[in-house]
Amino acid sequence: MSRHRGKLLRDLPDATGGEIAEELLCDGDMRIERIVSAGQSSPAGFWYDQATSEWVMVLRGRAGLELEGEDAILEMGPGDWIDLPAHCRHRIAWTAEDEPTVWLAVHRSAPLTPSLPGV
Amino acid sequence: MSRHRGKLLRDLPDATGGEIAEELLCDGDMRIERIVSAGQSSPAGFWYDQATSEWVMVLRGRAGLELEGEDAILEMGPGDWIDLPAHCRHRIAWTAEDEPTVWLAVHRSAPLTPSLPGV
Repeated sequence: MSRHRGKLLRDLPDATGGEIAEELLCDGDMRIERIVSAGQSSPAGFWYDQATSEWVMVLRGRAGLELEGEDAILEMGPGDWIDLPAHCRHRIAWTAEDEPTVWLAVHRSAPLTPSLPGV
Repeated sequence: MSRHRGKLLRDLPDATGGEIAEELLCDGDMRIERIVSAGQSSPAGFWYDQATSEWVMVLRGRAGLELEGEDAILEMGPGDWIDLPAHCRHRIAWTAEDEPTVWLAVHRSAPLTPSLPGV
């Protein structure tokens, strides 16, 4: 019986060349991944508009999430999560530049999160 | 459009009277919950034998997980995760007594995790 396991906060990859997404589990319609950011943000004017839903949490670091229709940028730190239903347009306003930001993303029937280029 | 969100590590409930599981999201076959433990462990000889699969991670605190067929107890701290396929028999050997242990559990088609009584 497979007992797949890991340590999400150990041996973080260097994401300064671009965000790094790694799949932890894929089972049917569900996919769990770790994403490591290093100061990246979405390009100006770019919005994610995903066909499927994503539950996402920050495990380490900090990030600012911009949600269409909301004036304030949602600042997220360790333990903070949000569910982004399909077609909930959003963008990454910023991620911490002084330490890695580690995300956990749980996708429902979603393709891999597009990675942002290096900064 | 619903943008359900929260802070998993804030305002932790007092679990000394028994583990506390709270549902964060339920969508189709998937359910995400936070579980707060305070020194609880599975009763002697008790094994979880769940009909469905569970991906679980420790966010804060520490816990020891016993897996049927493995001699060593798996010690888990922040960021450590394991996927428990359906009928992967396991039990909680211990959880930290000096601070709350916070778990994130992602269930595939599972009922609420049974809570352990207080210690």
